[in-house]
Amino acid sequence: MKKKAVYPGTFDPVTYGHIDLIKRAVKIFDEVIVAVADNAAKNPLLSTSERVDLLKRAVRGMKNVKVESFSELMVDYVESKKINVVLRGLRMISDFEYEFQMALTNRKLNGNIEVIFMMPNELYSFLSSKLIKEVEVIGAELSQFLPFFVEKKLKDKLKEQLKRSKK
Amino acid sequence: MKKKAVYPGTFDPVTYGHIDLIKRAVKIFDEVIVAVADNAAKNPLLSTSERVDLLKRAVRGMKNVKVESFSELMVDYVESKKINVVLRGLRMISDFEYEFQMALTNRKLNGNIEVIFMMPNELYSFLSSKLIKEVEVIGAELSQFLPFFVEKKLKDKLKEQLKRSKK
Amino acid sequence: MKKKAVYPGTFDPVTYGHIDLIKRAVKIFDEVIVAVADNAAKNPLLSTSERVDLLKRAVRGMKNVKVESFSELMVDYVESKKINVVLRGLRMISDFEYEFQMALTNRKLNGNIEVIFMMPNELYSFLSSKLIKEVEVIGAELSQFLPFFVEKKLKDKLKEQLKRSKK
Amino acid sequence: MKKKAVYPGTFDPVTYGHIDLIKRAVKIFDEVIVAVADNAAKNPLLSTSERVDLLKRAVRGMKNVKVESFSELMVDYVESKKINVVLRGLRMISDFEYEFQMALTNRKLNGNIEVIFMMPNELYSFLSSKLIKEVEVIGAELSQFLPFFVEKKLKDKLKEQLKRSKK
Amino acid sequence: MKKKAVYPGTFDPVTYGHIDLIKRAVKIFDEVIVAVADNAAKNPLLSTSERVDLLKRAVRGMKNVKVESFSELMVDYVESKKINVVLRGLRMISDFEYEFQMALTNRKLNGNIEVIFMMPNELYSFLSSKLIKEVEVIGAELSQFLPFFVEKKLKDKLKEQLKRSKK
Amino acid sequence: MKKKAVYPGTFDPVTYGHIDLIKRAVKIFDEVIVAVADNAAKNPLLSTSERVDLLKRAVRGMKNVKVESFSELMVDYVESKKINVVLRGLRMISDFEYEFQMALTNRKLNGNIEVIFMMPNELYSFLSSKLIKEVEVIGAELSQFLPFFVEKKLKDKLKEQLKRSKK
Repeated sequence: MKKKAVYPGTFDPVTYGHIDLIKRAVKIFDEVIVAVADNAAKNPLLSTSERVDLLKRAVRGMKNVKVESFSELMVDYVESKKINVVLRGLRMISDFEYEFQMALTNRKLNGNIEVIFMMPNELYSFLSSKLIKEVEVIGAELSQFLPFFVEKKLKDKLKEQLKRSKK
Repeated sequence: MKKKAVYPGTFDPVTYGHIDLIKRAVKIFDEVIVAVADNAAKNPLLSTSERVDLLKRAVRGMKNVKVESFSELMVDYVESKKINVVLRGLRMISDFEYEFQMALTNRKLNGNIEVIFMMPNELYSFLSSKLIKEVEVIGAELSQFLPFFVEKKLKDKLKEQLKRSKK
Repeated sequence: MKKKAVYPGTFDPVTYGHIDLIKRAVKIFDEVIVAVADNAAKNPLLSTSERVDLLKRAVRGMKNVKVESFSELMVDYVESKKINVVLRGLRMISDFEYEFQMALTNRKLNGNIEVIFMMPNELYSFLSSKLIKEVEVIGAELSQFLPFFVEKKLKDKLKEQLKRSKK
Repeated sequence: MKKKAVYPGTFDPVTYGHIDLIKRAVKIFDEVIVAVADNAAKNPLLSTSERVDLLKRAVRGMKNVKVESFSELMVDYVESKKINVVLRGLRMISDFEYEFQMALTNRKLNGNIEVIFMMPNELYSFLSSKLIKEVEVIGAELSQFLPFFVEKKLKDKLKEQLKRSKK
Repeated sequence: MKKKAVYPGTFDPVTYGHIDLIKRAVKIFDEVIVAVADNAAKNPLLSTSERVDLLKRAVRGMKNVKVESFSELMVDYVESKKINVVLRGLRMISDFEYEFQMALTNRKLNGNIEVIFMMPNELYSFLSSKLIKEVEVIGAELSQFLPFFVEKKLKDKLKEQLKRSKK
Repeated sequence: MKKKAVYPGTFDPVTYGHIDLIKRAVKIFDEVIVAVADNAAKNPLLSTSERVDLLKRAVRGMKNVKVESFSELMVDYVESKKINVVLRGLRMISDFEYEFQMALTNRKLNGNIEVIFMMPNELYSFLSSKLIKEVEVIGAELSQFLPFFVEKKLKDKLKEQLKRSKK
């Protein structure tokens, strides 16, 4: 039977850290489904469909990787796909506690699903979608952190947002 | 003389973790006052009176527990009650640093008041009011985390909020 | 192809936390090899063969679980078995940093091997072989932490050690 | 050649912790430039010019200290001044992770600039501009945390804000 | 009924941090029993009776404080005194995790006993008996950390140890 | 006046992480003195003179770097050189707490000396002399972690030690 894993997240936007993790996951699982959370509550900069599109371009050519979005409870989404493994990246301690709490909460909601954690390359251990947006990136050179088409989209969005906030 | 302790918090909403802590506290102190902070600044989901009501139902039948709210500086409230012990729960390291900073700041504001920390049952060590609200709980089964009447109130509120945000 | 994972450790002695993790792992992998490190340097209380024996009894009846010991470099051992997944448990932050450093060091030694982390049941999140030995367990009731035959062996060993140190 | 360092931050508002760090820095460097980030995105309580003014008063009489503001990318600002040392304070672990991530991100953006970290006096290790604003400080006695003119400005601002929010 | 608490520890040697905590505890409890662990396994520098003696001198004149030693399982000792509160100091995160594990382990061994945590004055937040012994203290001026008679005893012991190791 | 800094440590053995830090330090200071602690108490694998020799070879060709050893109290050594800056590397949170405690302790012993912290390249953030010795390195390929002559010395020492322990 094929071993599948779901890698859920906000991916706002996808970084080389996420891509590194996906590459590691396909060495272990027969199929990896990258699942973009349609969580308007987190107020993402990019829309769900934009995040899905960027991810699809980012994993183009990688075998056994699918990109989807979901809007239901994460454990319900995973169960509906008949998958029992959820994958999350761990970079730093602040990740760890949040991930721990979330994983234990999810385990209570659905005890069949196991969360496994993997570490990205240490080159990306400091990389965070949130931080990148904080660095006032419009003028910065981000090619070490993001694929060029993600960088372009991100800067366009931030410029738009800036214009709107100045009105 | 009766030994009293104040257990202040936002309780937005009260969880089984809080209730577990209250039960532990009444084994040590002659009276425990659960004090709901009327802090509009934190933008709670439930109003102060709703949070007080849910807590009152949650501690019904427990001896030596009172529920109140306060809007002044916490140390001033505690002093006005002629109490010198403040109780806080510690679950995880992220709690720890915030609690530490807050306790030291409060100690500077009023050196007579001591903060003591207690740990909930490990079953609730991952439980957080904040997380519960993040899990998109409307569809989830939360009876392991919250008394049923808290769960109902929380879901009603979240549905209301959702409706409003869709308008 | 069968998906296999190695779960290496000192297991001095095996606890219910380890056993919980093994049960979770066999839900994900087709075979799990529990690998006892023959690391005299860590100065374990139980000999390698004692630790292997206790583990074998502890997993009796569990399908797809093997117990072995190894004395070479961990990554060399794993590679010699043609396996590319190493499993480790994560309970607390102090685990996290050590595991992180060790995993990154091992990744440098052999880039083909991926370490994945899983969380035990929160009931065992505080449980540590080291702590159990520290608690001066000879007189304590340990049946919540350890299978009875592990408890017995541990106490026998500690009594022996005590006798020797008194001479 | 004169050794200079830039100490960037939001300083919303400056506390005795920041001032302690500046005093330590001038013992090491020939000139310290305190650089207020003009980051509207962080939504500071005090305007950039108010934060610069308070800092100027706070360092009055200290030799070799300048106060400026900047609105470009931090590493670009520092490079434009032909300085290669950035100074940051470290108080607690939550600082540490954020600072670490930020410093590594900045190092990628400009590899010539080194971040060095210093510790304030332990009396100020718990002190945080953010926390002070949270403590509902209007009624509190803050002279242990802030110079009196900073305290006054802060309270005036908070009262204004409160009035506006009540309308 | 009198509220009593046990404050167990190794106290090798007692520092101003411990003394500060005892002073805080007697403001909350009617009696505080400082209990020196007779744990030869930890290989303390000072003997149990030396540690008891130094503590007795350190708390001389403080009302409602007793000093004892114990050699049984800590929870058994506490229960034998018919006390249900154990007090521990929390300074730093490394404390936190160890204390957490230990407290949860003890709670399993005896569910009637509650551990409460208190924070010493921030002046002593960095102070550790272990560190003091590491600093190669023989030549150092330690009067900020320890009562003078503790300092003297500690240095005498370290000199003795040094002599023995040179033979 | 020349700005000097002391970089003290055990260096048992020196790694590329230490060397990276020294390179960063000489960009900031006019002279960096790498100071090997002659702390027999820590029971190092390599003798003080071996550690000094390896460091000297490792920094060969780097301008403005000196290597020395010291056996007195660290703050006394630094003061005797009329230097007021001590440099330490920070990689991970476990470093952070220990370094914090040590720096605050040293500040009490000598208030004129400031400790500054720098971060190594993230490639070395996981690298630890202690861990390298734990990995049972005799058979491992360590050229990514250590200069070849350090690797050789380390393996020779470990082999010797192994032989002795087998007798």
